[in-house]
Amino acid sequence: MNKGNLVYEGKAKMVYETDEPDKYLVYFKDDATADNGVKRGTIEGKGVVNNKISAYFFKLLKDNGIANHFLETVSEREMLCKKLKMIPLEIVVRNVSAGSLAKRLGLEEGPALPMPIIEYYYKSDKLGDPMFNRYHILTLDIATIDEMNELEHLAFSINTIMKERLKAKNVDLIDFKLEFGRDEKGKLILGDEISPDNCRFWDMTTKEKMDKDRFRRDMGGVSEAYQEMLDRLTL
Amino acid sequence: MNKGNLVYEGKAKMVYETDEPDKYLVYFKDDATADNGVKRGTIEGKGVVNNKISAYFFKLLKDNGIANHFLETVSEREMLCKKLKMIPLEIVVRNVSAGSLAKRLGLEEGPALPMPIIEYYYKSDKLGDPMFNRYHILTLDIATIDEMNELEHLAFSINTIMKERLKAKNVDLIDFKLEFGRDEKGKLILGDEISPDNCRFWDMTTKEKMDKDRFRRDMGGVSEAYQEMLDRLTL
Repeated sequence: MNKGNLVYEGKAKMVYETDEPDKYLVYFKDDATADNGVKRGTIEGKGVVNNKISAYFFKLLKDNGIANHFLETVSEREMLCKKLKMIPLEIVVRNVSAGSLAKRLGLEEGPALPMPIIEYYYKSDKLGDPMFNRYHILTLDIATIDEMNELEHLAFSINTIMKERLKAKNVDLIDFKLEFGRDEKGKLILGDEISPDNCRFWDMTTKEKMDKDRFRRDMGGVSEAYQEMLDRLTL
Repeated sequence: MNKGNLVYEGKAKMVYETDEPDKYLVYFKDDATADNGVKRGTIEGKGVVNNKISAYFFKLLKDNGIANHFLETVSEREMLCKKLKMIPLEIVVRNVSAGSLAKRLGLEEGPALPMPIIEYYYKSDKLGDPMFNRYHILTLDIATIDEMNELEHLAFSINTIMKERLKAKNVDLIDFKLEFGRDEKGKLILGDEISPDNCRFWDMTTKEKMDKDRFRRDMGGVSEAYQEMLDRLTL
């Protein structure tokens, strides 16, 4: 598998073409940003850990019938993925009040929500990733109503699968962000990554944070927390 | 009709009890605020004009089958209204890109939207009236799914009725904000006011603004624009 042209560089990943037109190589970086890019830094070893954690969850989801772009792990920092036409939406699923939800609703961080919440954010650095509702998504022709119904159904299913597995690892799944794309037939496929960069993971007993909030909030022990999450899942 | 205790004082109105337990007296003030209360001022004669414009639209909507709290005009600045238990949501209907929608979607101000947009904002000065989606509303137990379906149906109907009438007055209905309450049987009833304070009205020919944006944006001629809107509707 030869690495071809760089087709996309994001905050935490680079995506390359390969010899095969329907496959991309995804490279996980150590770079980290927060507050819409205002805060920047490096989390040593993050790329290696996130490549492994993402592969773990993508395999778990595939085993449970959730189509996703992961094909195989290629190197410590690289995975081979199915090429998708990405939908410019972040789909956030929340089980517990934390982060921007706690601020928006005027709640403390920590209490479980009566039911999971889904939020859409429009992926636009220029606009600061604004929250969208279904009408906004229809207006900009980003997805159809049927697609949004399916996206939300998939997001809730993924939540159930991940929550259950993490519970066995003594980890609470507080919230997480998903990104989907369409394959060549227009089918919705889960893409991006699933890692401590875009999930909140709390130890069920101590409530200790094992995710990017340690970086966002300058709590220290960031690399160690990422490694601990990988260890919990795979050891 | 005797004016009783003040039960609520908002930015633009005061609400009083009356001799009859199921009726409130609503008094329209000249006070105006913008930017979540950061900008404050007075628009001379606004209370008188908004009392009349609101009465005009409430009558129009009642004639078209939309239940609302208006009972009768009592004085230049006062209307008698059915008592409602207000739902703490602002329901915004938008036909044209303007204001915060233009910013959120990264659009210019002015172009008509392909279809009307509805947005919910949670009425909370402390939180800065954040945008909510249906999951947020369910989480805080503000309204049920059936109620949201009905609120959106009512909001679209009100939009159609108002747009058509305003077109006959050479005015474009750009967007507007509604607030609803429940009567003693739990039925959803339109409350609050309908005026240049919470609607954007543009002259269809000149695109001149005849609404609170003149105050928000320090454009001058605010009182005159409010009066012009009243004249267009009633002369």
